[in-house]
This record gives sequence, C-alpha cells and structure tokens, in this order.
Amino acid sequence: MAESIRVFAPATVANVNCGFDVLGFAVDQPGDELVLRRSDKKGIRITQITGDEGRLSLDPGKNTATVSILQYLQKQGLEDIGLEVELHKKMPFGSGLGSSAASTVAGVFAINALLDAPLPTTNLLPFAMEGERVACGAAHADNVGPSLLGGFVLIRSYEPLDVVQIAPPPGLWCAVIHPKIEINTKDAREILRKRILMSDAVDQWGNLAGLIAGLYTADYALIGRSLQDHIVEPIRSVLIPGFARVKASALEAGALGAGISGSGPSMFSLSADEATARKAATAMQMAFDEAGVANEAFISPVNTRGPIILD
Amino acid sequence: MAESIRVFAPATVANVNCGFDVLGFAVDQPGDELVLRRSDKKGIRITQITGDEGRLSLDPGKNTATVSILQYLQKQGLEDIGLEVELHKKMPFGSGLGSSAASTVAGVFAINALLDAPLPTTNLLPFAMEGERVACGAAHADNVGPSLLGGFVLIRSYEPLDVVQIAPPPGLWCAVIHPKIEINTKDAREILRKRILMSDAVDQWGNLAGLIAGLYTADYALIGRSLQDHIVEPIRSVLIPGFARVKASALEAGALGAGISGSGPSMFSLSADEATARKAATAMQMAFDEAGVANEAFISPVNTRGPIILD
Repeated sequence: MAESIRVFAPATVANVNCGFDVLGFAVDQPGDELVLRRSDKKGIRITQITGDEGRLSLDPGKNTATVSILQYLQKQGLEDIGLEVELHKKMPFGSGLGSSAASTVAGVFAINALLDAPLPTTNLLPFAMEGERVACGAAHADNVGPSLLGGFVLIRSYEPLDVVQIAPPPGLWCAVIHPKIEINTKDAREILRKRILMSDAVDQWGNLAGLIAGLYTADYALIGRSLQDHIVEPIRSVLIPGFARVKASALEAGALGAGISGSGPSMFSLSADEATARKAATAMQMAFDEAGVANEAFISPVNTRGPIILD
Repeated sequence: MAESIRVFAPATVANVNCGFDVLGFAVDQPGDELVLRRSDKKGIRITQITGDEGRLSLDPGKNTATVSILQYLQKQGLEDIGLEVELHKKMPFGSGLGSSAASTVAGVFAINALLDAPLPTTNLLPFAMEGERVACGAAHADNVGPSLLGGFVLIRSYEPLDVVQIAPPPGLWCAVIHPKIEINTKDAREILRKRILMSDAVDQWGNLAGLIAGLYTADYALIGRSLQDHIVEPIRSVLIPGFARVKASALEAGALGAGISGSGPSMFSLSADEATARKAATAMQMAFDEAGVANEAFISPVNTRGPIILD
C-alpha cells in the first residue's frame, strides 16, 4: 500500500437535454484534484482545501470529498485507518458541472487506489452517491456516475441501482461555457413542474432513444437531431441570461447540439471534432459577452476514463 | 415488369412497454398476404378479400391496403396503370398486432416490387402511413415502420419524419397471445391521461434508454429490466381480463419481459431463445384460459426482413 496518492476526477454534464435525471457524461477538463496521505493518527482529517474561496467545510462528515471516503472505510471495516486529505477544487461551484460529484468521486477513488483497489470501480458508485447526498440533499447518480465511470452513463433505475456505461463515439468533443452567475441546484429543481404533457414526454423519450442509438452507431447527425429538450429547458433557461443566443451560436458554429449542463447555469455543446468544438466555444462565449455575462470556457473530448491517478 | 406478384407483410408489436408511441418491432408470424396483378383495365380494383369476415371495404379509396398503393401511384405519376388486388388477412383484427399496418405495407411493397423497385424500401414509409391514417385516423408509424423495415424501429420524430432502424440481437423470440376480445384503438387511446407525473416520465425514458442500449449490446438482462411501463399499462391493462396473471406467467416461464402489444388486447413476451418463447406462450395461454378468455398464440423470431416477395 502506497503512503500517499494524488488523483483527478472529471467534471460532468448531466441531463444532456433529452436525458433529464437519467443521463450524464464526463469531460476531460475541468475537474478536481485530491491528495490522500496515510497518517499515524487514527481518523480522517482535511488538512487543506484550495480553490473553494473558503466555502467548503473542513469537517470530514460534512465535506462531499470525505463523506464518500468515510462510507467506504465503514463498509470495509477500516474506520481505524489514519488519513489526511487535501482537496484542490479546479472547477467552479454551483455551475452545473458536477462540482460536488467530482470531489466525492475523487475521494472514494483515491482511498480505493491507496488500498491497492480492492473494489472494482463500478462498486464505488454507492459511496460516491452518499457524498452527493451531502451536497444536494439527494443521492443522485447522474453526475457521480459519469465522473466515476467515464463516457456517457445512463441511470436506468435507482431502486435497484442500474447503471449502463455507453462509450462515446470517436471524436466527440464538448465545449462547456460557465457564465459567472450562480444557480442553486435545489432552486433549479423546485421551479420544475410536477406534471407534464404526455405528448411532450413522448417527444422526450423519442429523442433520448434517438440519442442512445446515435451514440452506439456513431451517427453524429442523429445525435444532433436528438439533443432536444422541450420539458426542462424552457423553464430553466429563463435563469440564464442570453440562453437563446448562446445556444443558437453553438449550432450556427456547427455544434451537433447545445443546452444546459445539469441544472445550469453552465451551457454545453457537443461537436463531432475538436475544431468545431473550439469554434462553438468561441461563438458561445461571444454570445455571453454580448449579454454582458462574464464567462469562462472549458473545451475537451468527452472523457472516457473517469478518474485517474496523477502520482 | 412482372405481371403479378404475391407478398407477405408482418404483424408488429408497437409501444413495447417503455416505448409508447415511438417504438415497435415486427414478428415473423402472423401477417398479411396480398396479390397484385396488372390489368388492361385502367384503375385499381379489389377483387377479393379473405379472412376479414366481410368487414373490410372493397372501395380502394377506403381500404388501407389500396390507399398506400394509390398514394404511391399518384406520387409516381402512374394513376393510369390497371391493377387488381387480392388481400388475404391472416391475422386478427383490432388485436393490437398492427393488422391495418400489415395490409397497407403489403400494398405499397407489392406495387413497388411489381414496378421493379424504383424506390428504396425506406422511401415507402410515407405511403404506408397514409394507409394507416385511413385505418385509425392518424398517420402513426409505430406499426407500419417495423412492418416495412423489419426489426425494431424507433420513430424519433414525425415532423420531420425521423426513423431509426435497430437490428434485434440474435435469438430474440416473441410470443404474442391474442385474447379473442376486441379493443378499438381510438377507445384505448382516449382513456389515457393528457398529463403525467414528471417522475413517471423520467422512469419511462430511463427504461426506454435502457432498452435501446440493451438491444445494441445484446444485453438480454438489461432488455428485461427495461421492459417496464408505469404510465400506459396500468390504464390499458384494465381492458384485458387476466392481464396481471398472463404477464406474471410469462415472466415466471423465463421471458425477459411482457406487456400489451400496441393498444391491446394482445399481449406479447420477449425471450432470449425459442424454447423459452414457447414456454412463455404456453404459460400465457393457460393464464388466459383460467380467466375464461379464448385465445390464440403466435410464436416467432423478431422479424428482421420486413415484407417479402412470396412469388
């Protein structure tokens, strides 16, 4: 067993328009880094957090990164181990990019790796979901799933938990633009309707089925036609200044589709190659600029590996 | 150009539980046969219909089998051709097995084949949909799509029409049990709710995404877990005596899943091999028998070819 380990866990785009609450994918950038060190002193301590502007708890029972570690150690009967944790947030908060998910996945991936990986990666998901519960009140898996497993991840069911990994077709790149405004996940959820039109639901599941088919067959045009959301986007998009122009700009630049990342305010676009993804990012940034919204861009391939050991 | 042609078009199972209004698949049996003969006398005449108990119109403008032919001829500028049509219904009416779809697909497939196939098969879909409009008041494609194209067919969108063919994984067999009661498609549609719970819709599109993933990866267990419907089945199943026992019997016999075929009253089960499909059929028939409902069974592989030329 190593004395210390440094890992990276990726940010994620949940919902992906037609896949509200059941689909997400991971990106290569941004993400969180976490260092886990063995200590002679029993118990787990958070020794340092950077990049959080002092907003995250240093209490291991309240920090998403350590909650997943604690859950893991309890299940493995290893509560007596001594550990020190450094968390380096390298992505924005409340951005709709799965910030808490990246931290909690980094934590549980790190402890499992430090212990020479006694559990297969897929078995770490329930622990990561507990970290997510601390962050947003519910043990959602549409961010932790893809952050942990890479690629696209479908959460078919929670009871029992049933997760399907879908490898992205080659060349699929993502541009995420984070407008520097903040939306609380709970607020973004509360404005949604409890009942929806059957006809809208049929359109939505037709589109999601099309998206899944497009991913399996590398049919980029079908992916593009399927990336629609007539249920959640019309409601949540009002919270994002410039939304319509940003989305249209991405499509005009050649992106396959664009929409809200998670519960926003970040917006994503998917493209069939890197050059188009970069053009889409520039166009989306310009549209946010014109709306007077400060923003930053992250451009990367759809992640295929999940978390990695840095050293 | 041949002087006459005889074709077969397959029955279909629409909805497939979680794919309400967007998914269907074809079966090898039952289906309709249609004979198309050139005639020196201009115009199209229906000379014989068998198996319909005298219920279908002999007026070519009102019979689904000839409506698709008329639409086709009009589009091709061939209204002056002389044709005689024999329709041999070899499947039950109002059964939820796409009876009208099989007839209209047989018609348009036959005329295209008689003319040495000037159009690719996929281009015949709009004509077949017009036949379906005559039968059920709306140009649905979830029966005509799979009857024409074979395998599973996803109707992602109607405007514009966007159809995705999904080849079934090897060995997938279907048992369809037709209880000899009749449900009108319009009635079965009218009892559905206009609004549904968002949470039910999320479950449904998660299941449909799982089913599509299962079909592409030949993951039979995932197909089975995904074959659920908590939206339409609870409402329509009350129209089918013995429904719960029939469904449970299929699953107990080893079927991957079971449910209502189309708008019912037929029920289908999918199995990973022929032997299981036969066991499921027997179990489902016994359950209908116990409910005092006369019934007949059709057992066949999921069809992969669509309509065929018999001679």
